[in-house]
Amino acid sequence: MRALRLNQWKSEPVLEEVPVPEPGPGEVLVQVGAAGACHSDLHLMHEFEPGMLPYDPPFTLGHENAGWVHTVGQGVTGLEVGQPVAVVGAWGCGTCAHCAAGLETYCERPDLAPVPGGGGGLGLDGGMADYLLVPAARHVVPLPDGLEVVDAAPLTDAALTPYHAVRRSLCKLGPGSTAVVIGVGGLGHLGLQVLTALTATRIVAVDGRDSARVRASDLGADLVLEPGPETASRIREATGGCGADVVLDFVGSDETLATAAACVRQLGDITIVGIAGGTLPVSFFGVPYEVSVQTTYWGNRAELVEVLDLAGRGLLHAATTIYPLEDALAAYDDLTHGRVEGRAVVVPNDTFRR
Amino acid sequence: MRALRLNQWKSEPVLEEVPVPEPGPGEVLVQVGAAGACHSDLHLMHEFEPGMLPYDPPFTLGHENAGWVHTVGQGVTGLEVGQPVAVVGAWGCGTCAHCAAGLETYCERPDLAPVPGGGGGLGLDGGMADYLLVPAARHVVPLPDGLEVVDAAPLTDAALTPYHAVRRSLCKLGPGSTAVVIGVGGLGHLGLQVLTALTATRIVAVDGRDSARVRASDLGADLVLEPGPETASRIREATGGCGADVVLDFVGSDETLATAAACVRQLGDITIVGIAGGTLPVSFFGVPYEVSVQTTYWGNRAELVEVLDLAGRGLLHAATTIYPLEDALAAYDDLTHGRVEGRAVVVPNDTFRR
Amino acid sequence: MRALRLNQWKSEPVLEEVPVPEPGPGEVLVQVGAAGACHSDLHLMHEFEPGMLPYDPPFTLGHENAGWVHTVGQGVTGLEVGQPVAVVGAWGCGTCAHCAAGLETYCERPDLAPVPGGGGGLGLDGGMADYLLVPAARHVVPLPDGLEVVDAAPLTDAALTPYHAVRRSLCKLGPGSTAVVIGVGGLGHLGLQVLTALTATRIVAVDGRDSARVRASDLGADLVLEPGPETASRIREATGGCGADVVLDFVGSDETLATAAACVRQLGDITIVGIAGGTLPVSFFGVPYEVSVQTTYWGNRAELVEVLDLAGRGLLHAATTIYPLEDALAAYDDLTHGRVEGRAVVVPNDTFRR
Amino acid sequence: MRALRLNQWKSEPVLEEVPVPEPGPGEVLVQVGAAGACHSDLHLMHEFEPGMLPYDPPFTLGHENAGWVHTVGQGVTGLEVGQPVAVVGAWGCGTCAHCAAGLETYCERPDLAPVPGGGGGLGLDGGMADYLLVPAARHVVPLPDGLEVVDAAPLTDAALTPYHAVRRSLCKLGPGSTAVVIGVGGLGHLGLQVLTALTATRIVAVDGRDSARVRASDLGADLVLEPGPETASRIREATGGCGADVVLDFVGSDETLATAAACVRQLGDITIVGIAGGTLPVSFFGVPYEVSVQTTYWGNRAELVEVLDLAGRGLLHAATTIYPLEDALAAYDDLTHGRVEGRAVVVPNDTFRR
Repeated sequence: MRALRLNQWKSEPVLEEVPVPEPGPGEVLVQVGAAGACHSDLHLMHEFEPGMLPYDPPFTLGHENAGWVHTVGQGVTGLEVGQPVAVVGAWGCGTCAHCAAGLETYCERPDLAPVPGGGGGLGLDGGMADYLLVPAARHVVPLPDGLEVVDAAPLTDAALTPYHAVRRSLCKLGPGSTAVVIGVGGLGHLGLQVLTALTATRIVAVDGRDSARVRASDLGADLVLEPGPETASRIREATGGCGADVVLDFVGSDETLATAAACVRQLGDITIVGIAGGTLPVSFFGVPYEVSVQTTYWGNRAELVEVLDLAGRGLLHAATTIYPLEDALAAYDDLTHGRVEGRAVVVPNDTFRR
Repeated sequence: MRALRLNQWKSEPVLEEVPVPEPGPGEVLVQVGAAGACHSDLHLMHEFEPGMLPYDPPFTLGHENAGWVHTVGQGVTGLEVGQPVAVVGAWGCGTCAHCAAGLETYCERPDLAPVPGGGGGLGLDGGMADYLLVPAARHVVPLPDGLEVVDAAPLTDAALTPYHAVRRSLCKLGPGSTAVVIGVGGLGHLGLQVLTALTATRIVAVDGRDSARVRASDLGADLVLEPGPETASRIREATGGCGADVVLDFVGSDETLATAAACVRQLGDITIVGIAGGTLPVSFFGVPYEVSVQTTYWGNRAELVEVLDLAGRGLLHAATTIYPLEDALAAYDDLTHGRVEGRAVVVPNDTFRR
Repeated sequence: MRALRLNQWKSEPVLEEVPVPEPGPGEVLVQVGAAGACHSDLHLMHEFEPGMLPYDPPFTLGHENAGWVHTVGQGVTGLEVGQPVAVVGAWGCGTCAHCAAGLETYCERPDLAPVPGGGGGLGLDGGMADYLLVPAARHVVPLPDGLEVVDAAPLTDAALTPYHAVRRSLCKLGPGSTAVVIGVGGLGHLGLQVLTALTATRIVAVDGRDSARVRASDLGADLVLEPGPETASRIREATGGCGADVVLDFVGSDETLATAAACVRQLGDITIVGIAGGTLPVSFFGVPYEVSVQTTYWGNRAELVEVLDLAGRGLLHAATTIYPLEDALAAYDDLTHGRVEGRAVVVPNDTFRR
Repeated sequence: MRALRLNQWKSEPVLEEVPVPEPGPGEVLVQVGAAGACHSDLHLMHEFEPGMLPYDPPFTLGHENAGWVHTVGQGVTGLEVGQPVAVVGAWGCGTCAHCAAGLETYCERPDLAPVPGGGGGLGLDGGMADYLLVPAARHVVPLPDGLEVVDAAPLTDAALTPYHAVRRSLCKLGPGSTAVVIGVGGLGHLGLQVLTALTATRIVAVDGRDSARVRASDLGADLVLEPGPETASRIREATGGCGADVVLDFVGSDETLATAAACVRQLGDITIVGIAGGTLPVSFFGVPYEVSVQTTYWGNRAELVEVLDLAGRGLLHAATTIYPLEDALAAYDDLTHGRVEGRAVVVPNDTFRR
């Protein structure tokens, strides 16, 4: 089969022929229908050296995957060959306290996981290939009616991440509350849809790009602002002086975090989702009383089930640009140069076949 | 009646004769049995200038108060003259969203409160006097059986503050969890008792003072450490590498916050209670995933009811040193020079009279 | 002023002239703009005898009220004369544990409340009059922009009650969940709107009336069923065999409760809102494991603020039929004979004046 | 190896020689150190006929198991041969929504589980044997230091069940609250210890047996009552008229449930743990407002980890009477005739060997 291999750090991936994997006991072989090309893949190609991550090349790229069950290993029940599925990306040990609670993103025994701190496309072979070997049936989630494989793949990361971030703040997002979405890009525009689907909060969207602000309005933001020195005070005004209950920062720079701290309400949440490298200095009088500041990372199986449910019902949709597998490098090139509309999705096998 | 008055910023308070207040509609006049002398009173005396706080002198000091109901204003029901009570210290507007939920510490309409951002002893007349006028019956909490007025007064701040901090993290403090208490002083030693009473968490106490570490052991800490470069790694070892679920920092310096960040578990809490002026720089890779960092401030009526219940049942006790009202200045002097064992409590009226 | 007085049990109310009340300290006099006529008023008129309730006539009817602030008593801050407001209906003691948490519907010291177990229109004078005396400013909630007084009045009961019922089950109403609304009448059709506004749950509506089922579909129910022997099994089918996560029974008869128990999922909620007098026999094997069965009653101030916010934003709307105060008896007559479209609202003063 | 086999419904089990099982991929073979003899085993022997349960004999009895890892199947990581472990009893499908959240007791795809609605000793071979085959590594929990295998076995059911029941009510068990434990037998006396370890609630214990009431007092109950017509009113008195926040009924008869309904507080919990076959008729005015009535069943892995942690620290202890495997029938005979002090534990292999 074909596979887009990252053979060493600081190199371009190569489309190669490799053997089709055989699923062992408990494993599932998925025929890949779609694999999202993600910015973090560019980091993988260009920024790391041996020893910087807990794993090393070679491996096949692609950590946002969906397809059809091809074969299952011994002991796997509840899946049918040909069934369309999405793949949960974070593969933990399965038995530590966090994994036992379904939080494999925060596995505490990475030494017992299939790969420490990674998953398919992140140290192990991913979905930029004809087939993807998934090491446990629990990482495979059947698609609901109404959701195509090609639409499901990017949701496993670009929607799951903001979904997890919103879900942990749900109790602060009742009617009368205000949520601020900073950065209405790939993740942010899905975060906005999650807020609309799950809550009755008022939404303020902040983005410097005209097109992003238009998109935010179209998706139902109540107030759309450009970033600038007045942003925080305009949010305070719009909230009767109280500030925003939840700020989701999909950028994560020093500037956006400073805006978050300046516009958040006492008892609110500032959640750092974006990895722009910023820092928020937290001190007793520097942030309003009892505001929780935290990062969040990806999401888990139960949350992916819910994301897919929303998508199947038309409440969540990621815009995509499709590339065949043989053009995967072009997808990354377009991504590098900001030429992709929506999420870039690589399609190894004809998704309209079934 | 006598009252210890702060007449202007940057001055020593003076014991003066003032008229006994008359309770208006809805108000309660409390005969003061005990008023705690707090470090923050020293800040009030020495650090502020006009315009720095939302209120100004003159006012009577004393924001940790208990006594007996003396007279009640029109419309006050449910209180009996002579009944021993503690006084809730934070007096909000009573109707904003936070006050309506009982969170008057975080009142969002301070312009409508009896005094903006303060209370008795903080802008309004406090309890270092024979009588204290409380502006609403809801700020008065009857004492349970088994709790003396003189023991109740310091709990309204020194126990209520750590109680509030612990309560918000309760769901992370199940069996198998670990809580770290940094600083086992006036608030910290009560925080430790709150943890013991309310949870089955393992407790690690960190303090540089021998006497504080002995006290922590006596109060049930499972592990007692000196602060130093090894502290965080010893906590990680003691938790099987996972780290602490909740870190309560009763100091709040740069050093203690760095220790907190270095020893906390993914998904844990770092709560800044102490006001030593430190800063924790929070960034995506600087703190474990999804750790919540926040300050907390004082507590509310419902929590005070619970604190008093614990104290009445012997599960919470603050060591105290008693001073008559005429020696209140000596109490502050002892406080300034670190000569007070436990909390300094000023007793305007003989608490053993009843 | 005019007032519709219930002068004794088992009598028709009478429109009489009474003096305009004077607000005492802490009280608010509201010029009534609208007062909902509720089925429970018919019970008040016809079913009780002396000693059956904790209060007795005479009093003015009307417990669903909105209007404008007319005058305020001593000590009331934060309200402006002429400001449009809704009135919280349940008036508790204000200081017991439940009231301190804002749950005045469940006041535990009714002996200290303005009237035991009631409020305006329930033992004390209500809003079927030109003016309504409200005993505490916290029972008055300013209307948000976009909401008329005449629309607000019925929401204080007919929307607040289902809102409270939904809110307590929110954590079971994530994406992928199913909620069943039994009875799509006055409260049920608002419950359905609350579900739509606050959650992404799938909604099954059950009602025997064609018009109610049409209304349910129009309001967004995913599945609409007639009650019958197949109802529960059809709900199980529609949920892949699992059953419904939350069943809100706005009828509350033996039959509807049996349906609820037959269609609910393990770990789900059955909430009894309707007062048709039914009983659900709960036993170890009679209801799926860990299903919570409970009643709920009305709602509180914080929830009313949220209800009004939803209504002001167009997410919640009660159909109404308007009657002038002089036709209040006709309103009750129409109510008795099922001739009212939506909620009957009595308008003592021209609501379009301002 | 030896195994105590239930060969058909309505028969006595027989100690037979059977082959030692071989662990397949993902499975774990445990050398049994202790297996609790449970009342429900007596039901299994005597009350069922073919078709009444989703499984049939023959199988080995014993669903409360602990021992040492003997061998592990392919792909099992994180366990060491010889390591002392307890066995989680409820074996679900592992991937349905409930299993994914760790709630295998409430598995929604029993058709995909190792046995529908059961586990080891309940349809599949259990622990009354020299070795026990566990079908997935996630059902095996390492023992903490300080806990012997023989003490751990009964905790997997008799402590886990009340632990799960208490845990779901934790938020109602703050200081000032009251919990009622009805029935201080095998499960109840452990429930009482769980309450003491995890909360600062006041505990009322109700039991008709003198010895049970003495035990309750020794374990820290604040008030101990005989069941009778005055029980509920005495609980109301002891709670200032409010009633109990949580009632845990370890009996579950009509009488005990009626007591629960009569003594519970508005907004409280009545949790039915015992299987005496009683029914509580729930209606709008029959139980205080918003009291949740529910059953609970057993518990899950995460909870068992916490139970074992408590036991390892000496906070939870089940009294036991030990029988060698060859005397297992005598254990059941003693159980039948009420001659067992504490829990009967069958010890196939010398637990003091290691």
